[in-house]
Order: sequence, then C-alpha cells, then structure tokens
Amino acid sequence: MKTKITKNIFDLTPYQAGKPIEEVKRELGLKEVIKLASNENPLVSVRVKNALKSALGRINRYPEGSCFYLKEKLAKELRLKPANIIFGNGSDELIDVIVKTFVEKDEEVLTSQLTFLEYEIISKVNGRKVVTVPQHNFKYDLKGIKNKINRKTKVVFVANPNNPTGTYVNDREVMDFLDGLPPNVVVIFDEAYNEFVDANDFPNTRGYLNKKNVIILRTFSKIYGLAGLRIGYAIAKEGFISFMEKARPPFNVNSLAQAAAFAAISDKEFVLKSRKLVLNEKKYIYKFFDEMGINYIPSQANFILFDAGKNTISVFKEMLKYGVIVRDMKQYGLDTFIRVTIGKPAENKRFIEALKRVLLKKGLTPCANRNCASVV
Amino acid sequence: MKTKITKNIFDLTPYQAGKPIEEVKRELGLKEVIKLASNENPLVSVRVKNALKSALGRINRYPEGSCFYLKEKLAKELRLKPANIIFGNGSDELIDVIVKTFVEKDEEVLTSQLTFLEYEIISKVNGRKVVTVPQHNFKYDLKGIKNKINRKTKVVFVANPNNPTGTYVNDREVMDFLDGLPPNVVVIFDEAYNEFVDANDFPNTRGYLNKKNVIILRTFSKIYGLAGLRIGYAIAKEGFISFMEKARPPFNVNSLAQAAAFAAISDKEFVLKSRKLVLNEKKYIYKFFDEMGINYIPSQANFILFDAGKNTISVFKEMLKYGVIVRDMKQYGLDTFIRVTIGKPAENKRFIEALKRVLLKKGLTPCANRNCASVV
Repeated sequence: MKTKITKNIFDLTPYQAGKPIEEVKRELGLKEVIKLASNENPLVSVRVKNALKSALGRINRYPEGSCFYLKEKLAKELRLKPANIIFGNGSDELIDVIVKTFVEKDEEVLTSQLTFLEYEIISKVNGRKVVTVPQHNFKYDLKGIKNKINRKTKVVFVANPNNPTGTYVNDREVMDFLDGLPPNVVVIFDEAYNEFVDANDFPNTRGYLNKKNVIILRTFSKIYGLAGLRIGYAIAKEGFISFMEKARPPFNVNSLAQAAAFAAISDKEFVLKSRKLVLNEKKYIYKFFDEMGINYIPSQANFILFDAGKNTISVFKEMLKYGVIVRDMKQYGLDTFIRVTIGKPAENKRFIEALKRVLLKKGLTPCANRNCASVV
Repeated sequence: MKTKITKNIFDLTPYQAGKPIEEVKRELGLKEVIKLASNENPLVSVRVKNALKSALGRINRYPEGSCFYLKEKLAKELRLKPANIIFGNGSDELIDVIVKTFVEKDEEVLTSQLTFLEYEIISKVNGRKVVTVPQHNFKYDLKGIKNKINRKTKVVFVANPNNPTGTYVNDREVMDFLDGLPPNVVVIFDEAYNEFVDANDFPNTRGYLNKKNVIILRTFSKIYGLAGLRIGYAIAKEGFISFMEKARPPFNVNSLAQAAAFAAISDKEFVLKSRKLVLNEKKYIYKFFDEMGINYIPSQANFILFDAGKNTISVFKEMLKYGVIVRDMKQYGLDTFIRVTIGKPAENKRFIEALKRVLLKKGLTPCANRNCASVV
C-alpha cells in the first residue's frame, strides 16, 4: 500500500509557531508562564467579549459567507466600498487566496529574505516558485527586489512593518518601487502591524489602490486582540476582490470572529490603550537593552528583535525555565537573535529579569563592546 | 493596468451557500424567518455555550495550532491515537488539504455526480482535474466509479450518507469497492451526517483505516451544532495524517471552535436529543409527503430531497415569501427538486404549511399519480 505524497508537501518545511502557554506548563511543570512569542496583544476588549456572549446562541448556524454586515461596517470605517474588502480565516488565508488568484503555475512569487515565512510556505504548498532577495541592515531592499522582477514575476509580498525585524520601508521608497512596475505585477503590502507605527514617513498605501496593482493585508489578530478567532482582511480594487472572493472557501470566517471584529472596530478606546501600552513599554525595554549593551533593531511594531549574543535555541530554552516564552530565530537563520513581543508592564519586567539571569549566568555581557545603534 | 487572473479562478463557478436568515429578512422585509436550507442542527448545546463563555478571556492568544487537548480527547473517544486525527476549519478545509497532500498536478480526482459540490470546486481551485460518474437512482454508483479508475486517478471522494440526496452506500458495496483498488488510490469517505444514520448495513469504515488507503471525514457542523464555529476532522493512518498536518495552515482552527468541540464531545445528551429530533421529525415530514403524493428520497441524514413538481427556483422564491428558506437544487441540475433540512417541530410544521400553499396555489397536486416510493 505505497501511496505517493505530492512533491510540494513532501518537500515542505512547515511554519513553526510560537510555543503555546499550555504546552510549556505541561512540558516543564510550570504554573505561571507568560508568552511574549507571537506578537499578540496582551489585552482583551471587554466590549468584544460582551458581543461574543450575545452571539453564542447562533453557533449552530453557518456563518454568513460574505461577511455582509462586517464588510459594510469596515468599509464605512475605512471610507471604501464593501466591494473593496475581503475577509479571511486570518490574513494567512488571504495569502493563499492571492497566490491562487494571481499566480499561474509557471509564474513566480517574489519577496524578501528574513520576513514573514508564510509567503514562501503558502506559495510552495500551492506549487509556486518563490524568489527571495536579501535585506540591507535587517530592512526590505525594495530596489534589490525591483531588480529581480522578471517576465515570470507575478506577485511581490512586502511586509511593512516587517516581521520579524520590526523595520519599515518609507513612503519615498514605496513610491519609487511602484513607479514603472510591469503592469502584470501585483504588489501586496502586508500591514499586520500598521496600527502600532509611529514613523512619520510610513507610506499611505491606500492612496495607490486605484492607481497601481496594490493589495493591502490587515488583521484583527494584532492590535484588535483577536488572534484566537482568526480574522484578517485584504483591501484592493473591486476587480481584484471579486476574483479573490471566488477563490476563498464559502464559510472561511467563523461567525464569532465576525461578531468580534464588528465590535472591535467600534472599540476605539481599546485600540488607543493597546497602542499606548506598546509605545510606552517599547521605550522601557529599549532602555534595558541599552543599559545591558544588547544590540537590538528599533521596531515599528509590537515586538523587538535583539541579538542575545549566544545561541538562539539555548536562550529560548533557558528563558522557558523562568516561565517566559520568547521566539528563537532559528527558522529565520539568525543564530543569536531573539524576538520578544511587548507585553503588559509586569510581563516585560519579568522578561527583563529572566533575560538578565540567562545572559549573565556565564558572566556574559552580550555585545557590550559593539555599537548597538548602528544596525539600522 | 491589465492583470491576469489565473485560469483556475477565472473559470471557477464558486459554491453557492444556503441563503442566510439575516439576508432574507433584509431583502424581503420579513421579521420571522426560518432556515431549513443548510442541514444545520436547530439546537444549541448549553454545555458548549458555557464552555465558550469560559474561553472568551483567551481570544487575544493564537489558537493551539495542533489542537493538542482536543485531539487527545477525541482520540480517547474514538479509541484511536491523537496521531490518527487532524482538524480543519470545517471539513471543507480538509478536502483542500487532501487534494494538496495526495493529488499531483497531472493526477485526477474522482467522485460522483449529484454530491457535495466542494469536492469538485476545491479540486478545481487547486488546478486538479475532476471526473464525475453518474448516480443510479440518486445513489452513488460505486461500481461505475471503480470502472472509471485509471492510472491518473489518485483520490476518490465518497459522501456517505450523500448530500444532497440523503442516500447511502452499504457495507457490502464499500467492501467490494475497496477490494483490489490500485495501491496508489486514496478513498475519502465523507461522513458528515454519520451520527444521523439508522441503517443497519451502514459501513464501519474505521475498520479499513489500517488495511486500505482510507481517510474518513467528520464534522462538528451537523449533529454537534457548531456550524458557525468551523471545525471538522479527518481520521486516517499516521503516515497520512503526518503529511496532511504539513499541508494545513498553522492556525487553521480558531480557539473557540476548539473549546466548543471539546465540550461538545462530552455532551452525549445533546447528541442523543438531536438525533431523536431528526429521526422523529423525518417520519412526520415523510407522512406529509406521502399524503400529498410528493416524491421524495428516503434519507439517512438530517435533510430530505423531494420533487416539488415545479421549477426549483420558483418554489424556493415562493417559500421565501412565507419566511421559509429551503434549498433549491439548480446548482445540482435538478430542475424540480428541493432539499429541506429537518428543523424543530414548529419549524417543520411551518415548512409544511408553506409548501402546501406554494404547491396548491395553482391547483397542483405534484406527482399525485407517480409511484413515489420507487425512486430508491
């Protein structure tokens, strides 16, 4: 009974997610574990929880496939038409929808190295070839990417701000990049961390929706605090969205996610509070890194990539013993880097205490004699 | 800015879902609308609702990608290993996973006509060729399907009981079908309606899991009453599941669906009550059909396919005016048939009253002189 697995799947290295809290508790027998590994919002909106309670009586009914009411609400909020929006089971699913809608089997996906791994993984699951371009100083090299565009290039993924580096490409760079692109190429700006940005020159990609072949990805998993419910969206011109709607599964977004997102859009206070938390706490962690002489990449998102100066897996494991889950960067090929998500003040404090212990254990003061500010 | 859409998506006719209640209320200005169109359970488990309430505090965290605890619980329930189970965002998603895991680009998917349309649609979205075999008397023709197997056939989908006909293939037919199949062919038994079956000769497909290339699909959308949450599962040998796990997206099943399914497995009382409701009410609707001389297909599921004797779209539309949503069979090419889901007693009564009015309006007594029992 020898059954062949497809080459796409046989060869695939799947995405490795941040370690769940329950798993760490289970494996290490710990009672108190904090997770700063998956760029989640540590807060939960009370308004959203109440909306969910009211929706529980309808769980036996299939969700509205088109997300009709949610689309209307979000369109109003974004000053777009409902026909400019499509929802997915997380924005991950929309990456899949984009690949299926735009990239023929013999066409290629182009993106950066050291970026959200799902662009590459999802393209490969679908049997599409992926070309990646190195970064400059942990930042997307849009010029280098543009130089790599050839007859076969169909879709370019740009994470902005980028995960896992936290860096961004600015308005001028995006303008130059989009200028004179071949008319068949579609550029995806994945703006999952958009709401945390405080750079003045961050690009307003919405201005390109009708002028260029641009699709913007956004999510409710980050600042809106709905990672567990799985809901993200894409905005684009109607001509793009109508075909993407054909490619998505009929009931892809569950009804509680729809109800939660509907309530989350109205909870402006929660979004402001979450943003303020991240911006304040980021300064606090930067300060600690500076004092410790730890090399880090200034971030426009709710996480910070830093150089722990020793093996990423061993730091990850030692931090676990203190009940702190961070993200090792092995899958990204960064041997000594760690990504930490900004949590609640007490969580960040605990992270700092644990990291001190882990790094100072063997008398190490990582990168104390390096110029830490020079990375970006 | 001419951007080409892929041929797979450009040519696709997407799945048309049952009309949502809210949409009908909106479009027809009706206040009381009942939906008997999507084979949902009309009941909601109180135990599940309570479990969901307890899980609301964690919606900001990504779901456990592997569904660890749920897998353990279901494995115990089914007396299998956790490694024999994979969960999907509805069993629809697992159809996609199966196609990607087993069917190469130049291989083919084989199934029946007049069955769940997603087998064909999902295969086509993935650019795979689909071959369909006609039914005999509204029933899967397993012999005919076996005859169509060729060198390129890789996956065969068998919905059992079948949707939209409600018919089933029995243990003997399945045994004969699996006997001597080419070793490279994988057979998928989609048993979404399994828990409603009362036929004594319904096949125990689990007995084939280690002997044949068999995958069983099940869902929490039907008898468990969780259609809105999107969770289904596949069971198969470990060697199959391990590759399917690679092909699924990392956070495909939301955390509330996991919590709900966990609670639903324990709520045996709810499952029994739901089954009893369907079996009792089916008799009641059969009796009405018999009295009216309406031709119907005896069903092993929670829905009944019947011949309304007039245009399916017009019956659907006229039923809507009475606030009753049923399913027209236009997409399946059955011009005068309607599929009705078995609802609560009051809903079924309302369906009957509405149908009487719609069919008797023009003095029609449909198929009064046909032998209605002869279809199966």
